[in-house]
Amino acid sequence: MERRYTLSLSCPDATGIVARITTFLADIDGWIVEAAYHSDPDSGNFFTRQVIRADSLSFGVDELRDRFALIADHLDAHQWQVTDSAVRKTAVVLVSKEGHCLYELLAQWHSGALGADIACVIGNHADLAGVASMFGLPFVHVPVPTDPDGKAAAFDRIRSEVDTHSPDAIVLARFMQVVPPRLCAEWSGRLINIHHGFLPSFQGARPYHQAHTRGVKMIGATCHYVTADLDAGPIIDQDVIRIDHSDSAADMARRGRDIEKAVLARGLAYHLQDRVLLDGLRTVVFG
Amino acid sequence: MERRYTLSLSCPDATGIVARITTFLADIDGWIVEAAYHSDPDSGNFFTRQVIRADSLSFGVDELRDRFALIADHLDAHQWQVTDSAVRKTAVVLVSKEGHCLYELLAQWHSGALGADIACVIGNHADLAGVASMFGLPFVHVPVPTDPDGKAAAFDRIRSEVDTHSPDAIVLARFMQVVPPRLCAEWSGRLINIHHGFLPSFQGARPYHQAHTRGVKMIGATCHYVTADLDAGPIIDQDVIRIDHSDSAADMARRGRDIEKAVLARGLAYHLQDRVLLDGLRTVVFG
Amino acid sequence: MERRYTLSLSCPDATGIVARITTFLADIDGWIVEAAYHSDPDSGNFFTRQVIRADSLSFGVDELRDRFALIADHLDAHQWQVTDSAVRKTAVVLVSKEGHCLYELLAQWHSGALGADIACVIGNHADLAGVASMFGLPFVHVPVPTDPDGKAAAFDRIRSEVDTHSPDAIVLARFMQVVPPRLCAEWSGRLINIHHGFLPSFQGARPYHQAHTRGVKMIGATCHYVTADLDAGPIIDQDVIRIDHSDSAADMARRGRDIEKAVLARGLAYHLQDRVLLDGLRTVVFG
Amino acid sequence: MERRYTLSLSCPDATGIVARITTFLADIDGWIVEAAYHSDPDSGNFFTRQVIRADSLSFGVDELRDRFALIADHLDAHQWQVTDSAVRKTAVVLVSKEGHCLYELLAQWHSGALGADIACVIGNHADLAGVASMFGLPFVHVPVPTDPDGKAAAFDRIRSEVDTHSPDAIVLARFMQVVPPRLCAEWSGRLINIHHGFLPSFQGARPYHQAHTRGVKMIGATCHYVTADLDAGPIIDQDVIRIDHSDSAADMARRGRDIEKAVLARGLAYHLQDRVLLDGLRTVVFG
Repeated sequence: MERRYTLSLSCPDATGIVARITTFLADIDGWIVEAAYHSDPDSGNFFTRQVIRADSLSFGVDELRDRFALIADHLDAHQWQVTDSAVRKTAVVLVSKEGHCLYELLAQWHSGALGADIACVIGNHADLAGVASMFGLPFVHVPVPTDPDGKAAAFDRIRSEVDTHSPDAIVLARFMQVVPPRLCAEWSGRLINIHHGFLPSFQGARPYHQAHTRGVKMIGATCHYVTADLDAGPIIDQDVIRIDHSDSAADMARRGRDIEKAVLARGLAYHLQDRVLLDGLRTVVFG
Repeated sequence: MERRYTLSLSCPDATGIVARITTFLADIDGWIVEAAYHSDPDSGNFFTRQVIRADSLSFGVDELRDRFALIADHLDAHQWQVTDSAVRKTAVVLVSKEGHCLYELLAQWHSGALGADIACVIGNHADLAGVASMFGLPFVHVPVPTDPDGKAAAFDRIRSEVDTHSPDAIVLARFMQVVPPRLCAEWSGRLINIHHGFLPSFQGARPYHQAHTRGVKMIGATCHYVTADLDAGPIIDQDVIRIDHSDSAADMARRGRDIEKAVLARGLAYHLQDRVLLDGLRTVVFG
Repeated sequence: MERRYTLSLSCPDATGIVARITTFLADIDGWIVEAAYHSDPDSGNFFTRQVIRADSLSFGVDELRDRFALIADHLDAHQWQVTDSAVRKTAVVLVSKEGHCLYELLAQWHSGALGADIACVIGNHADLAGVASMFGLPFVHVPVPTDPDGKAAAFDRIRSEVDTHSPDAIVLARFMQVVPPRLCAEWSGRLINIHHGFLPSFQGARPYHQAHTRGVKMIGATCHYVTADLDAGPIIDQDVIRIDHSDSAADMARRGRDIEKAVLARGLAYHLQDRVLLDGLRTVVFG
Repeated sequence: MERRYTLSLSCPDATGIVARITTFLADIDGWIVEAAYHSDPDSGNFFTRQVIRADSLSFGVDELRDRFALIADHLDAHQWQVTDSAVRKTAVVLVSKEGHCLYELLAQWHSGALGADIACVIGNHADLAGVASMFGLPFVHVPVPTDPDGKAAAFDRIRSEVDTHSPDAIVLARFMQVVPPRLCAEWSGRLINIHHGFLPSFQGARPYHQAHTRGVKMIGATCHYVTADLDAGPIIDQDVIRIDHSDSAADMARRGRDIEKAVLARGLAYHLQDRVLLDGLRTVVFG
């Protein structure tokens, strides 16, 4: 695929923003291959994502950033960035014992569908070490003890391992540990979890058992950014499947694996392709 | 359609129950047109529903009940019944101001798809009186004041109106009032609500606003039996639709109407066709 | 809701179109409440839909059309229009014997959800006359004989009745007759059908029987514009439901009614809100 | 999981079949952990599947088969079998260049979720040899030339390789070759394909391009038994996802991969768990 620059921005909404941005792009002869816009009447914010063919511009990505900075400044942008498809993104994956999400991410990476690198897999148990190494990836085993000091030390190790790679995404692929608030803050906007429940239902532990007890007729999975407030971070994607009275909690857990891995992979792809912008606790996803 | 008897039963699970019931039916030459079974390993209960052609038996429904009573007794049945398709069922519908569920139920009734009678429509507001009368149905306007005494008196009137019809189903079709606990108890197993949220998420008031604030990517509706514990009764059916960041709370409310009415109509049909059996707070739905 | 103008346009794709249109709108102080864009790399066409608050302009809809005509001309527009929410749209509904789609459309109209008028209902059978008159709408009974002359005469009567109302939509709501090619041509882009199958599967008669024979595991419904090529017109919307081996063809027909009416109502709403643009045999639907 | 016997049977429908089978099972003290029944009024056939705990019987699987043979004989069974969970099933997977289905099957096998062995992977191209060997599985490369003699010879080699393993399932996991009729016949009821279209729509080559050209709003995948009549074999499972005008044929192909692999894995699991019985060209799937 040809080289592309992806520009994304959020700013206070006002008249004429699209005209200003698209005129800027037309003036530099930018060939737009994807464009999306959203004005949110509740928050009063504006969001856009534009994908431009690199070869349509007579200058490079640094000058594009410099020139666009003036526009972003004028629009009082809350956040904006220009990413370059020639700079490959990187993810780190954290796991525990359940492997279905890990297999999915590694298969997508290995086949090229992910369009990004996976730097390493970190597990608080060693069960999935073999899966990582089968795919040729380093596996770092960091046991997480239950005592506060041991746990803090373990997360220091995890943090240090993760930060080595400066990853664009830190993915909790059924990592069954609560990430300490300071790491949630440090990795804010890059820390992605898959919750095996249809949030905000069934937060916390054993969501399938909760779902079975409540007698729901559909179960779901939720991919979301992690914040210090457990299971309450901005939602990127969700999906559900229909179940019935004959499904035990164990059946739900087994059948739910298919949507967990699909929703996580989809949410991660949106994130890595700069399709997700934050609007407070809500997300704008240009799918 | 030919006359049918529908036998439904729940009892403690044990070996040989299906053999006993089906041998009973074979011995009386019962022509079974539908049969469903469920054993729940968690509760230890067994459930069945059998539909038999009336003309295959050499005796009537009363003798069928008498004969089956021995089996039910032997199986220590928690609940059992034999209904007769020649005895048409009756529903009463309670509404407030929003009409989409009422139109759906009345259209299904009017076209014959409901397979049951609607005796009357009761509204705490008069807005939908014209819809009921257009379909040729009585509308009873019972304003529900906010003061405890006035409210109690209003629900006494509603109760008296409902009980006149001895309905098989009392349907809360977007009736925005909390039904008093004593009526929930009296109408237990016959009182059916549609909640405009994917329970157990977004209980209580304004679920679409709650859903919008939380930033979910799918919204749902839930049809359930009403118990004194608000929005926590046994769920009969649920469904969801996908939404995105461009949907305001008002958009969700508008789009959600389609699933609310579909889920309510489906849940009510299951109930009226004796397809729903209770297993504690969970339902067995032989769909 | 405040008065709005809806501008829609398709034209050959080129650089700078969005800049030109949005600059035009910004220059006239247009307050854009909805905006959608699509560039199709296969057809090389560009599509947009913009909704503008009428009170944000210092002039009326005629001047808006005059001014925009210059832009449209410059862009070599294939088609464009500006509609005015103050000018209420009109539909005519054609039916046969099955009422579920008619009830749905009339309920949406009666409750105000349709946002348009239904001028009359035309039936080749009289079965649904009572439904139309219950809702206070004229019903025109035009029997359609099977002999060519009788059929041609019947469609002349239908045409004359339809054209009296200059409707924005002519809706085939389970009208089981093949519309003659010349009427398909005359009503091109306004003639909307619901097919009770997931096109292009199961074209023609008795799609549920075809589906049952083939043993599919999901059944569907398709809302499409009608062209002279039966069941091959541009698709506006589709949906499916899961079925299984226990569903007979009659069960499929009964269960399919729910999606037929939902898909038709949704497709018609898209059409009436100017959300559908044609790209050859494909549609762009700004949902 | 404890050892289990799975009994499945189809026979002409008649009164008393369930009574006979369940009485047989009750008489031998069989502890039934799953039971499903279906009577098809169209074909006049009866189907059942019963799962029995091995440790509830006082004898082994051979005697169970001997004893049940009398019942099956009496019922004029079209087909019946008793499988034993202690005898692990085997599959062979045929691939071409696209790997997403292969990764999925191998991950399910490797994690234990498949509950069966994969004996080897056969490819007409060598592209996926590395994936098989990464998982520790033999990969057999059998190029399939286009000339009739070369093709026949290639399929002789494939046949010989497959038959070495006496597999319970031969899985075409995006194997882009037409299997010769004689092999379809020899492997009848064991040869399973995933078609990347919602059959019977878009049979044959390039279904996503066909879907794009037709302008459908949902795309699907179909898992089916292969017969000599291309893409017309009995369907085991299907699923769809919603797309819109912004999805190119390439986008559809990319997004469709998720449902292809999920539908194939689900269909294969149904097959391996003896949940699928044939009723002419239709399947009964006890899910």
